[in-house]
Amino acid sequence: MLIDVFPTAGSIITSELDGKTAVVFDILRATSTIVTAFQNGCSEVVPMVSVEEATFLGGLGQADVGRKEIDVLVAGERGGQKLEGFPYGNSPLEFTSEVVKGKKLVLTTTNGTRAISGAAQTAAEILIGSILNARAAAVEVCRKNRDATMVCAGTVERYSLEDTLAAGLVIKEIVDIKVREGVTPILTDLATMAYHLAGVYQDQPLRALYDSLHGQKLLKMGLADDLAWCARLNTIDLVPYYSDGKIVL
Amino acid sequence: MLIDVFPTAGSIITSELDGKTAVVFDILRATSTIVTAFQNGCSEVVPMVSVEEATFLGGLGQADVGRKEIDVLVAGERGGQKLEGFPYGNSPLEFTSEVVKGKKLVLTTTNGTRAISGAAQTAAEILIGSILNARAAAVEVCRKNRDATMVCAGTVERYSLEDTLAAGLVIKEIVDIKVREGVTPILTDLATMAYHLAGVYQDQPLRALYDSLHGQKLLKMGLADDLAWCARLNTIDLVPYYSDGKIVL
Repeated sequence: MLIDVFPTAGSIITSELDGKTAVVFDILRATSTIVTAFQNGCSEVVPMVSVEEATFLGGLGQADVGRKEIDVLVAGERGGQKLEGFPYGNSPLEFTSEVVKGKKLVLTTTNGTRAISGAAQTAAEILIGSILNARAAAVEVCRKNRDATMVCAGTVERYSLEDTLAAGLVIKEIVDIKVREGVTPILTDLATMAYHLAGVYQDQPLRALYDSLHGQKLLKMGLADDLAWCARLNTIDLVPYYSDGKIVL
Repeated sequence: MLIDVFPTAGSIITSELDGKTAVVFDILRATSTIVTAFQNGCSEVVPMVSVEEATFLGGLGQADVGRKEIDVLVAGERGGQKLEGFPYGNSPLEFTSEVVKGKKLVLTTTNGTRAISGAAQTAAEILIGSILNARAAAVEVCRKNRDATMVCAGTVERYSLEDTLAAGLVIKEIVDIKVREGVTPILTDLATMAYHLAGVYQDQPLRALYDSLHGQKLLKMGLADDLAWCARLNTIDLVPYYSDGKIVL
């Protein structure tokens, strides 16, 4: 089993994902939000690259974007800020079971939805990863038993500490599982680095979010509670996956 | 002081190096070879991107490339192999004082010379970094007191564990020096990751070269002695720099 990492949405080489399991990470905050929404009973998430597309495919039309009392929730952010006119932003704490249970969520984010749509072109399957469900994602990767690539969204084409850490936490669990089975996975150099990063931060993942530049930006916006939520390692035992334009369980 | 890292020669954003100190790393083996050659009395290294250029600028002409008994040494590799017809390859162990003392070395390598020429477009100065001279490079960066970017050559556009480790070892020394001066440098996310990688491997840098895919390739080519040499942390107290097309002390 070969394990690789793409550091940013822009670095995805689709031909290298062909036939592989991809795990997508945009943990501050898109993929943490998606995983949380499913834990709270969300039925489906539709990730959208463009705001216009999100608005349209929410089945709402621009005029209805502000309405909350429907079965489709429209949510999104740009630059960490909730989109104007959108009822929901990109905070995992917004999507309580009262809000999302049985609902479909249309979500547009800066980097996360780009990473998902990039991976979608060739990967055999696309799993949604985060710190919250790192162990569950690793178990699922091992069950599929294909070569696996961790696809980090990154932050505006820059390498992101928090996504690489989440990738590393999944890689570390994969290595542990495979070694117990008598197999030693081959790690590319970036996968090795992510693995070591997990070793550094696994006992204090929140520290990594405070060390990351994007985390510091969110802190300045008053989003410390979001960071604390996103750092709760292995607290959610679900692995949503992307297929045919939507994310389901 | 802001400290950043570019992970590969292809990822260099020249506008972001403007007015900064760049430290270039291609430690398996170009920059380790350059640092070693200067320690052994080499007078000047001319890094060349193309083989043709190296041959021409060695002042030799294609026909004379095989001659060793001249003041200009022509050396280079592609894919880790010595170039056909070139008297020297890219091993630091080739450049003993008997070979290089007082000589000029024209060197063409796969990724290292690309990284140097990429950085040369805008950086205020370009230092040659390696594990061998990590502390010396950090001292020099602090003496310049500009924002600094570690420019890793990478291996054919992929992140390289060994270059990122060397960058991290320099960053760790910079942070130590600046903190003693009462200044906390700002690290980008990739700089933070490199810093932690240095913490993981600093007591056993050779281990990182064995963990890296390029290191494993060189081992298969019988170059274990080269790896052992390149991993000798802080054993050379020189920092060559690039200026006007050549590297000098």
